[in-house]
Amino acid sequence: MRKILVINGPNLNLLGEREPGTYGNESYASICAEIGERAAALGMECEFFQSNHEGGIIDRIHEARKDMCGIILNAGAYTHYSYAIRDAIAAVKIPVIEVHISNIHNRDEFRSKSVIAPVCAGQIAGFGKLSYFLGVNALDEMTKNQK
Amino acid sequence: MRKILVINGPNLNLLGEREPGTYGNESYASICAEIGERAAALGMECEFFQSNHEGGIIDRIHEARKDMCGIILNAGAYTHYSYAIRDAIAAVKIPVIEVHISNIHNRDEFRSKSVIAPVCAGQIAGFGKLSYFLGVNALDEMTKNQK
Amino acid sequence: MRKILVINGPNLNLLGEREPGTYGNESYASICAEIGERAAALGMECEFFQSNHEGGIIDRIHEARKDMCGIILNAGAYTHYSYAIRDAIAAVKIPVIEVHISNIHNRDEFRSKSVIAPVCAGQIAGFGKLSYFLGVNALDEMTKNQK
Amino acid sequence: MRKILVINGPNLNLLGEREPGTYGNESYASICAEIGERAAALGMECEFFQSNHEGGIIDRIHEARKDMCGIILNAGAYTHYSYAIRDAIAAVKIPVIEVHISNIHNRDEFRSKSVIAPVCAGQIAGFGKLSYFLGVNALDEMTKNQK
Amino acid sequence: MRKILVINGPNLNLLGEREPGTYGNESYASICAEIGERAAALGMECEFFQSNHEGGIIDRIHEARKDMCGIILNAGAYTHYSYAIRDAIAAVKIPVIEVHISNIHNRDEFRSKSVIAPVCAGQIAGFGKLSYFLGVNALDEMTKNQK
Amino acid sequence: MRKILVINGPNLNLLGEREPGTYGNESYASICAEIGERAAALGMECEFFQSNHEGGIIDRIHEARKDMCGIILNAGAYTHYSYAIRDAIAAVKIPVIEVHISNIHNRDEFRSKSVIAPVCAGQIAGFGKLSYFLGVNALDEMTKNQK
Amino acid sequence: MRKILVINGPNLNLLGEREPGTYGNESYASICAEIGERAAALGMECEFFQSNHEGGIIDRIHEARKDMCGIILNAGAYTHYSYAIRDAIAAVKIPVIEVHISNIHNRDEFRSKSVIAPVCAGQIAGFGKLSYFLGVNALDEMTKNQK
Amino acid sequence: MRKILVINGPNLNLLGEREPGTYGNESYASICAEIGERAAALGMECEFFQSNHEGGIIDRIHEARKDMCGIILNAGAYTHYSYAIRDAIAAVKIPVIEVHISNIHNRDEFRSKSVIAPVCAGQIAGFGKLSYFLGVNALDEMTKNQK
Amino acid sequence: MRKILVINGPNLNLLGEREPGTYGNESYASICAEIGERAAALGMECEFFQSNHEGGIIDRIHEARKDMCGIILNAGAYTHYSYAIRDAIAAVKIPVIEVHISNIHNRDEFRSKSVIAPVCAGQIAGFGKLSYFLGVNALDEMTKNQK
Amino acid sequence: MRKILVINGPNLNLLGEREPGTYGNESYASICAEIGERAAALGMECEFFQSNHEGGIIDRIHEARKDMCGIILNAGAYTHYSYAIRDAIAAVKIPVIEVHISNIHNRDEFRSKSVIAPVCAGQIAGFGKLSYFLGVNALDEMTKNQK
Amino acid sequence: MRKILVINGPNLNLLGEREPGTYGNESYASICAEIGERAAALGMECEFFQSNHEGGIIDRIHEARKDMCGIILNAGAYTHYSYAIRDAIAAVKIPVIEVHISNIHNRDEFRSKSVIAPVCAGQIAGFGKLSYFLGVNALDEMTKNQK
Amino acid sequence: MRKILVINGPNLNLLGEREPGTYGNESYASICAEIGERAAALGMECEFFQSNHEGGIIDRIHEARKDMCGIILNAGAYTHYSYAIRDAIAAVKIPVIEVHISNIHNRDEFRSKSVIAPVCAGQIAGFGKLSYFLGVNALDEMTKNQK
Repeated sequence: MRKILVINGPNLNLLGEREPGTYGNESYASICAEIGERAAALGMECEFFQSNHEGGIIDRIHEARKDMCGIILNAGAYTHYSYAIRDAIAAVKIPVIEVHISNIHNRDEFRSKSVIAPVCAGQIAGFGKLSYFLGVNALDEMTKNQK
Repeated sequence: MRKILVINGPNLNLLGEREPGTYGNESYASICAEIGERAAALGMECEFFQSNHEGGIIDRIHEARKDMCGIILNAGAYTHYSYAIRDAIAAVKIPVIEVHISNIHNRDEFRSKSVIAPVCAGQIAGFGKLSYFLGVNALDEMTKNQK
Repeated sequence: MRKILVINGPNLNLLGEREPGTYGNESYASICAEIGERAAALGMECEFFQSNHEGGIIDRIHEARKDMCGIILNAGAYTHYSYAIRDAIAAVKIPVIEVHISNIHNRDEFRSKSVIAPVCAGQIAGFGKLSYFLGVNALDEMTKNQK
Repeated sequence: MRKILVINGPNLNLLGEREPGTYGNESYASICAEIGERAAALGMECEFFQSNHEGGIIDRIHEARKDMCGIILNAGAYTHYSYAIRDAIAAVKIPVIEVHISNIHNRDEFRSKSVIAPVCAGQIAGFGKLSYFLGVNALDEMTKNQK
Repeated sequence: MRKILVINGPNLNLLGEREPGTYGNESYASICAEIGERAAALGMECEFFQSNHEGGIIDRIHEARKDMCGIILNAGAYTHYSYAIRDAIAAVKIPVIEVHISNIHNRDEFRSKSVIAPVCAGQIAGFGKLSYFLGVNALDEMTKNQK
Repeated sequence: MRKILVINGPNLNLLGEREPGTYGNESYASICAEIGERAAALGMECEFFQSNHEGGIIDRIHEARKDMCGIILNAGAYTHYSYAIRDAIAAVKIPVIEVHISNIHNRDEFRSKSVIAPVCAGQIAGFGKLSYFLGVNALDEMTKNQK
Repeated sequence: MRKILVINGPNLNLLGEREPGTYGNESYASICAEIGERAAALGMECEFFQSNHEGGIIDRIHEARKDMCGIILNAGAYTHYSYAIRDAIAAVKIPVIEVHISNIHNRDEFRSKSVIAPVCAGQIAGFGKLSYFLGVNALDEMTKNQK
Repeated sequence: MRKILVINGPNLNLLGEREPGTYGNESYASICAEIGERAAALGMECEFFQSNHEGGIIDRIHEARKDMCGIILNAGAYTHYSYAIRDAIAAVKIPVIEVHISNIHNRDEFRSKSVIAPVCAGQIAGFGKLSYFLGVNALDEMTKNQK
Repeated sequence: MRKILVINGPNLNLLGEREPGTYGNESYASICAEIGERAAALGMECEFFQSNHEGGIIDRIHEARKDMCGIILNAGAYTHYSYAIRDAIAAVKIPVIEVHISNIHNRDEFRSKSVIAPVCAGQIAGFGKLSYFLGVNALDEMTKNQK
Repeated sequence: MRKILVINGPNLNLLGEREPGTYGNESYASICAEIGERAAALGMECEFFQSNHEGGIIDRIHEARKDMCGIILNAGAYTHYSYAIRDAIAAVKIPVIEVHISNIHNRDEFRSKSVIAPVCAGQIAGFGKLSYFLGVNALDEMTKNQK
Repeated sequence: MRKILVINGPNLNLLGEREPGTYGNESYASICAEIGERAAALGMECEFFQSNHEGGIIDRIHEARKDMCGIILNAGAYTHYSYAIRDAIAAVKIPVIEVHISNIHNRDEFRSKSVIAPVCAGQIAGFGKLSYFLGVNALDEMTKNQK
Repeated sequence: MRKILVINGPNLNLLGEREPGTYGNESYASICAEIGERAAALGMECEFFQSNHEGGIIDRIHEARKDMCGIILNAGAYTHYSYAIRDAIAAVKIPVIEVHISNIHNRDEFRSKSVIAPVCAGQIAGFGKLSYFLGVNALDEMTKNQK
């Protein structure tokens, strides 16, 4: 069975509680559960990882290259300056899909630039939790032949 | 039945023939057909519009506000400077989803900026023709209750 | 009788319907009617032209050089990047007055720059439909001797 | 009777004498007289104030909030850097109309930016002394109901 | 008894009346009174000066070097461009503490830069009238030994 | 016989009439005639196309890929911002030579940048109508072997 | 009893030893002790946390939302680029006061910009250890009613 | 006898006392005296004016156009942002010579730009009080024929 | 007989050997020979000069003003920063035509800017050695009447 | 015996596996072994530390100040934005030598800037693993007298 | 007798012939003669050096450190980019006075920046040949005590 | 025997005399001697070249391609703007190692950018004369197999 890793970066553990006007009312756990179901329906198993530590995210991406067929990554604010995470993505060979809950292009100026986008397979932003689901769909289509 | 409009901007009529290393080998017609099928499977009817004219695209967006429940828009190079198309999107009330075949973030510097993104519902970029399919999925989820 | 041309650019056909918080509730037709009356009261005849096409606006400016004594131009979003319209204005010898309904200086950063302003006779911005009326007054004063 | 205040900033006392190619040959006094007549014809009384002192202009704007129904302001070179005057405009509740004799958009680069524009009701530029007259018209229309 | 000078720059005379959402409802006089009490409680006498004139503020800073042991300065909008006030601060040897009522870092872009900060002893911003009180505390601690 | 297409962009239809100090006194028709003769002398047939419409120019470039051996393109003001025309040039396989009547490097700052230059075969600017003739010469040399 | 958290970021553990010309000779422990006493005198209990890890600081801010009535944060160099810490501050509802020992505005250019300032309650910088004491005072005044 | 005006801007009244490492130990009065002697030796009479008020400097420049044959201007910090003083210089017809005591090009970045230089006859900077004397020499040579 | 000077700047002596992917395989000598023939066929005599020394190129341009009717100049990398060569071109009255072998607009960013272009008669770039031949043609047409 | 510390930052644990075109085929372990031998040959003992955590690197630099005579630091992508690591280097008194395997100046724009370089003893970049060996040589020469 | 060196950079050998509107009608030789006389009158001997070669100017500055008491330097266009000449000036201990014939601050943007100014004793610009004479005066005053 | 060339650019002939705080007290000759010995010990013969002339350095680099196995280049201030030297390095096939005596990253802003770095094999900066010795080591390792 294909395994995919869903990484959530800094402050996403507070989903539901944090700035609900921007990020919605559902908790991190509840969204993960729904992502897992969507993936299962497509024959993929999800693993979840959340960390506020840049280094922790890098470590986890490195590990994933061994047994995951792809990564869905919401790097939170690290999206905008972590060249170290960018290098980690470039270093592994599995596809990484960048997702964002909010539309990063109509908020603070600094949020409109993603330093990891150039090395990701693609970017999905602005659809709320649906961004993750579309990421699951994308990984499914990209790795179907590996089933 | 929900109707959605798929707009393709300048030079996308040459898909399959134009810079295939970047845009793939499939023709515009063939990709449209596949998009239509995907939409149909989800209970939505697709209309297609392609134009190299900025004004033509604006006219078509205006019209769509009357009978479409959403738009999938690949504005081609207009993405990067057409504030007029941006205003058209902001002027209509239906959701517009921005899609791109290529990863606009790892090509020419000028392509990494989308002037229409701030007024779109969301952005999907880098997945080849799959970007359109994910756009269809997104519109389906966003308009399900209108069925 | 002196004839003046009132050109409205992209998305202004949707006046009244489009972002009413910014552009007001009156329709394009109703504002045109009022402009016409104001002009008539000053002994000038108004012709109206609206297009979402950059090229269409250029064509119309060219034509106007033959029988109009001046132009009132709200170029919409083209204001901010259409060097081609700028060149058209510079190419004709009649005065062109740039008008804007909203205060373009306290909205998005990109709206504070007009690329056509340097070749227009003057600029009037921020007064709602009154901007057009002031434009009519201005043209009247500038062309009085041609009566 | 509605009262309006016409403020002229630095160096405008030298009108007629100063760079006549740009600012015309008429003196400050003569232009004020004509503005006064135009206003009177519309049932408004004009008060005039000229100062080369940034602080003086601010003081006068503050005072005006008590008995004026609007201000016509040509802030001269302060237009381009006086955030203090900007704050004064924002602090009073009566409408302030920014006017310029010359077309500030086709002269030195630094003149194309107005730091006070975002807090003014509107901007009129490039029509010579006519800019003031249009400002009078605008204030008339905006305050008619206060008659 | 140690004497300190509290300088308030342009538009701060309108405190309580001016943009109360940003600057609060208390008047300039009432805040001064409270500052004076706080200072008195710490054994310091306060003198107050408010001016909308850049030159007036410079003159007052110069004078203060003779008999004041420190200055609390809210330079209003001059904070952002008055290199002349900056030079005045650098020219006197007594400590100058920069204070701001509002958080200058989350408003207009231009407000996030203070040209006087590099020559002030320190900066306190964002605490409403409390900013002044903290400034009084700071001056007290810095000049205690002069009692 | 080798066929070449000469495309002229916005406002070039007014050649001879438009800013003659910059663009000369000869009409569009007369220059076209002379270009045609020069080409004929070298054994090439010229087709001419002028449009003020960005989309129209793109359409024509697309078409040209079928039966033209090269294009001489004066894109007028579109030169400076039409990434859509740039993409059209990149999409066709025939050589496109960028020409300009005036020296675009010693006029307005914005004219010194050509967004289409990176995808053109070469650029010729500043020689008046001679720029077109040199373009004809260049195409002749580049396509000689196709005779 | 009201509890407040004092967070010190990277390299502040070396206070007293590190660049004493800039940061003074007193050790981290000794300054913490003095902060604690000041807070106690005002009826508040202090907790201290120091970490060189961005993620560790974020984790601690999250936790604090449960039982602290405010945070005093010296984020060290993270001040200048940690959008992740910024988001953490925005995510919790208790007030966070930014403090700096040195005057960040008269050192390296990069130090004059704080990316966390826009979401903090206020900023106090340049007073040496006194910056922390003023922060304590500020929190006391802001949370007095919670006693 | 030819009369010249020597204007000194903000903070120059503190010469000798203010940052002596940069501006030297001699007082304003003593330097003026020496300037006066130098001028007298060349058959010119000096008038001196010092003000910390931007508006005051502008007023004095205006007046000077009536009876002075030239101005030596050290505008202090206003040099770097006072477009109003620039306009005053441009408005009068007598030559204005810009002088600076210190080398404005090897101090703070902002001091290397003079906004008044483009309208002055010439600039002399970096020679201490000698800068004024050279200015006197220059005015002498430029106005010799008016003796 | 009309004489023209062909100047080649730094590193062009290594043509054929240097980065042949960009500059082709033909040697400097061989290209010069061909240029000479082309010129001769049009009744012009060519002189050639190559130097890696900025000053040497300036000296040679100065000299040329005495007996040459025009210059074809490939300034190599000096194109991008030699304001001294620019001044030399402006100082002589004969036409100077700027040529480049490669398309300077699709290489390193710094190569897209020519500091000499504003003072040259025109620019020809991107056609390989053909750029020189077109330069010869251009000079021929421009100086025909001097035959 | 002199001890030196070799710190490798994020993603360098994947050496040999990660983008071998840029970073070579040798593993992290194998390069460390070779560095150790080189150092031993010069009478120095090497300790190695690799971490993907910014905070971990800072902690290790702090510790090193107690018993190491120098540090060789390849900070990976942190080189380009970690002002916190920069401060750690500035805080310790032992020399830190910055090394890079690849030539950081001919890759992505963002890699050409090192924020830690200003506080390092020196920088060695572009020589593959040889960069480390040269760093060992440099430390040997700089600390010879401590043997 | 004190000796001073007058260095003139690129294109200044063409004085009198080159752009006389900007640089005047007098030849290089005639201006040098007049400078020599002025210097002689003050008891100083002048040596003159003109070169279009950056390296030649550097060589001459180096030499001058042995027997000259100062240098008057008009570096022509090298003023704006020759960091090598800047370093030469910084390397010698005698005073170097930067002079310019024209007002470099009201011409092309690039001319308003001098990279050598920060290491020169002072700058004199805009007075025509008088700039040199004032430079002679300045050197006289600065080296009087060496007589 | 392998031969290497050591090129020193402008002002480096004054080593020992020039700004000794930055560049040390040893003369150019003495450092060259030591470099020669180091190279000899590794079985390589050194040739030395110093010039203040950009063109001279280019000429020497060209020549070196015939009989040198590598170049050590300290281009002095040309490092920061000589695109012509950059092109010379790119034109020859032997490795060029960029060295700097001082740490170019903690001095003037302009010194932190090297325009030649992208085409050099590697860069060594900040180690005083040791930078050259490390360069010798590097060349030795890179060319060992050619012995």
